[in-house]
Amino acid sequence: MTSGSAPCVILDKPQLAENIGAVARVMANFGLSDLRLVNPRDGWPQERAWASASGAEWPLNGARVYDSVEAAIADLQLVYATTARPRELQLPVMGPREAAANLAREAAVGHATGLLFGGERAGLETADIALCQAVVTLPIDPRFRSLNLAQAVAINAYEWRMTVDTGAPPIFREGPPPATAEALQGLYEHFERELEAAGFFHPPEKKPSMIQNLRAALARARFSDQEVRTFRGVVTALSRGRGRVLEKLARQRAQSGE
Amino acid sequence: MTSGSAPCVILDKPQLAENIGAVARVMANFGLSDLRLVNPRDGWPQERAWASASGAEWPLNGARVYDSVEAAIADLQLVYATTARPRELQLPVMGPREAAANLAREAAVGHATGLLFGGERAGLETADIALCQAVVTLPIDPRFRSLNLAQAVAINAYEWRMTVDTGAPPIFREGPPPATAEALQGLYEHFERELEAAGFFHPPEKKPSMIQNLRAALARARFSDQEVRTFRGVVTALSRGRGRVLEKLARQRAQSGE
Repeated sequence: MTSGSAPCVILDKPQLAENIGAVARVMANFGLSDLRLVNPRDGWPQERAWASASGAEWPLNGARVYDSVEAAIADLQLVYATTARPRELQLPVMGPREAAANLAREAAVGHATGLLFGGERAGLETADIALCQAVVTLPIDPRFRSLNLAQAVAINAYEWRMTVDTGAPPIFREGPPPATAEALQGLYEHFERELEAAGFFHPPEKKPSMIQNLRAALARARFSDQEVRTFRGVVTALSRGRGRVLEKLARQRAQSGE
Repeated sequence: MTSGSAPCVILDKPQLAENIGAVARVMANFGLSDLRLVNPRDGWPQERAWASASGAEWPLNGARVYDSVEAAIADLQLVYATTARPRELQLPVMGPREAAANLAREAAVGHATGLLFGGERAGLETADIALCQAVVTLPIDPRFRSLNLAQAVAINAYEWRMTVDTGAPPIFREGPPPATAEALQGLYEHFERELEAAGFFHPPEKKPSMIQNLRAALARARFSDQEVRTFRGVVTALSRGRGRVLEKLARQRAQSGE
């Protein structure tokens, strides 16, 4: 499936320019760019929006201003209204995950889609929600419903991006593959020889279960070959440490004529 | 299934009080409340945090301040580090959805969990990430990676809440609980002291990265308390072994009249 165009973000009567800038920033974070403003309270453009976008200027530079929600969504084929408050409207209600899946599906066949957000105080008017195909509501804790506008956009934009991504997080670095069982056994046996020499396994009848427990704990770490070498070096260092101490002691004794 | 306790949120060196307040707000939105601050740049408490929390005061009122990430996570049994930047550490990397599922699964069996976030500019130090069990990264558009701190918390908190709403997948094996970060740190330090004494860390300038790699490899194993005790016994046995060998040699020499 191709990802299609990202949904546009329509802000109805946004109040604070800082919030418009913060919205632009999260849009850029998640690959959205089409920002539409319906009657921004303090007019447009506003410098503080650019100041709070941390460099995500293109959604602001390209933002279009409208004098009604109707006008702002006129060219769209699927619009979801995001709101925390229940309404009387007979519209499907869904979470951002299901909404994102629907938006991505429609975008993939070339439909123009959008997400409509209300202003900071008043939210959306019911008449404007009635222009939409569904209501998106976030799983907010009922004890504290006051969600910041840019956060609401962020979570919907994140969910949209998750549908575009294959689902797997980016691999930072192609990590080395886990070591083979043979390499691990070499480490275990080396380790256990030294522990035996150090008198670790007592009482002797418990040695098999002690070894099993040590091996199981280390197996969970899934060492790479490099890590197997490192931990063999660790075992060698700790045990050779004895040899060094002995040599040093022997030298001291020789020097002191003991 | 009960949901268990929400993960705590640890902010390492947060710079702006407004962001701390915004973090508290989204924590409240998604039902999180345990906020921990490591060396907040401008001290604590700061009025501007409360001003920007929009009434979500309880995470701020209860916030605890620490002077190191180590101290802040000491009582936790599973800590994930959130970061956008690639590291050399061999830790699992996952998205917020998988991370939330894991956190919820552990919380449901009573384990104390946390999410660690870096400061606005510098992010997390590798040494602190090495104390965690995995790295969480968001599906950010590579063309604009600058994600606001509160947004990063919001998306992780949202994903955690989604697992509570929908139910986390069950945990399969009822094993002993993982050790706390404090217990692990005790093991790491004990281990590193002995390696230092054995001359393992050379060249000296590589010691910090060698330590990080050892810690990250062991962190993946998620030792239980019993296993921490066992491996401390291992370290003691290997290093005390030196003393035993010395004693034995001294006895032999005394007997042979050397």
